[in-house]
Amino acid sequence: MDLNHYLAERVRMIETALSRHVPPASRKPATLHRAMRYSLLAGGKRLRPVLCLAAAEACGGKASAALPLACAVECVHTYSLIHDDLPCMDDDDFRRGRPTSHKVFGEGVAVLAGDALLTVAFEIAAKVPGWPRYPLAAVIAELARASGSLQLIAGQVADLEGERRDLGAGDLRFIHLRKTAALLTSSIRLGAMSANTTPARLKALTLFGRSLGLAFQVIDDILDVTQTSDKLGKSAGKDVAAGKATYPAIHGLEKSRAEARRLTAESGRALRGFGRDADILRAIAAYLLQRDY
Amino acid sequence: MDLNHYLAERVRMIETALSRHVPPASRKPATLHRAMRYSLLAGGKRLRPVLCLAAAEACGGKASAALPLACAVECVHTYSLIHDDLPCMDDDDFRRGRPTSHKVFGEGVAVLAGDALLTVAFEIAAKVPGWPRYPLAAVIAELARASGSLQLIAGQVADLEGERRDLGAGDLRFIHLRKTAALLTSSIRLGAMSANTTPARLKALTLFGRSLGLAFQVIDDILDVTQTSDKLGKSAGKDVAAGKATYPAIHGLEKSRAEARRLTAESGRALRGFGRDADILRAIAAYLLQRDY
Repeated sequence: MDLNHYLAERVRMIETALSRHVPPASRKPATLHRAMRYSLLAGGKRLRPVLCLAAAEACGGKASAALPLACAVECVHTYSLIHDDLPCMDDDDFRRGRPTSHKVFGEGVAVLAGDALLTVAFEIAAKVPGWPRYPLAAVIAELARASGSLQLIAGQVADLEGERRDLGAGDLRFIHLRKTAALLTSSIRLGAMSANTTPARLKALTLFGRSLGLAFQVIDDILDVTQTSDKLGKSAGKDVAAGKATYPAIHGLEKSRAEARRLTAESGRALRGFGRDADILRAIAAYLLQRDY
Repeated sequence: MDLNHYLAERVRMIETALSRHVPPASRKPATLHRAMRYSLLAGGKRLRPVLCLAAAEACGGKASAALPLACAVECVHTYSLIHDDLPCMDDDDFRRGRPTSHKVFGEGVAVLAGDALLTVAFEIAAKVPGWPRYPLAAVIAELARASGSLQLIAGQVADLEGERRDLGAGDLRFIHLRKTAALLTSSIRLGAMSANTTPARLKALTLFGRSLGLAFQVIDDILDVTQTSDKLGKSAGKDVAAGKATYPAIHGLEKSRAEARRLTAESGRALRGFGRDADILRAIAAYLLQRDY
């Protein structure tokens, strides 16, 4: 299996579906729909939805069954980026190589475009039929919890409040687990649910997602220190400039790189009970570790 | 039936349930949960959730079956107020007689508290079992559409953009239908769904909600002109100061009052096919018209 080919094909499938699930840019109010589409269809790795589809396949399911959930997760992720970039939050001017939503559409419309993407995420998720082990109620609850005040938003708040004080290793872990690992893990879980997977496999994939999500965030922290803005497609060095706690700031670069490797190995072990069907998940984890950090 | 007694009893039921559905203020991140509860449990008329419960009863159902949906709608309403009050939106300092969320917690936390209330709305809504004519998928889709980019948020955007230009009567109707009538109508529809009502009754209640919602907004516009801030519990005259189109600004006070009466009569006619079970809905409509405008 060629990972690049798989990723390109899946990204195309996801972007076609995302475009279909959100009203056209011409639909009134046009500014709002333009803003929603500007951020949602801005490219990006599509890591979360790809993982959702790959998890469905790792459990013997079909990517098409998981596709609405993959789109829902990407809508949640995009909304969180739009709000996170606002002047009252991280105050970032660039994202995915383009000006952020509020730089283009103004703060008011950016807030509302984020709100609308969060809302449409649940409309899209409600299109799946649910499955014997995971009825629709469980699917909606999963998405809401991962995106909610104890997970994704908890991470954003802790990150925001952390700018004003010294964070320890434990605080940083609290933020990483919630701001990054929660939604990423939920993407994988939702994919697995669409394959009506066993509770044991769901648990293994949860561990996989958690390790992978933490690894991903540690690597992002490293890249913020070592890369240029050009290469990142967003402002580099922002975390340092904002006096934010990051993995390298607390533990140093060497230890951070070792931790990223350790977490990736841990994610690999979580998949031991899976056969060849999970090769794509393994390949994605390896690919993430091979980012040049 | 004593309306005041009914309202007090229902409001207590709703507030107890709301408090249970949102994490305690001590739960980490405490700032976020304090902010969510500050706005959600700030009192207010609870008009939308009360209508949800009353609609369930008008269709022969039980208030308890509709209660999670009533709470979900109130979470959506509260999130929309928090975001609407932000400096980049209406920039309002008072709401329900208290400082607005961003004045107390800062803009970043206010944005996130709104996000979290929108998210928890879907988690709460997913607690209902669904009903033969209205399975959970239909319930979630109903809530998401009423709250989404073509309804509630469309109204907010049009309102925001309207501040910068002259609006006509048609534009104002577009805003009122979406910013106010959509979620209010959806509250009623969700209550009716929880009673597994017939499509014909759902349609009649949709017309009822639409007329009532428009009447409610016209009256709010009138009160913004004629009342003091003290009496409103929010800043009076804001719409005029912001150069916003309002019903009285376009049509004059006399015609606005006549329109409020006409819409209320229309809402009454929509309930003609209902028996005594709908008396409470009729009483609420009459009560709204009797606000001293």
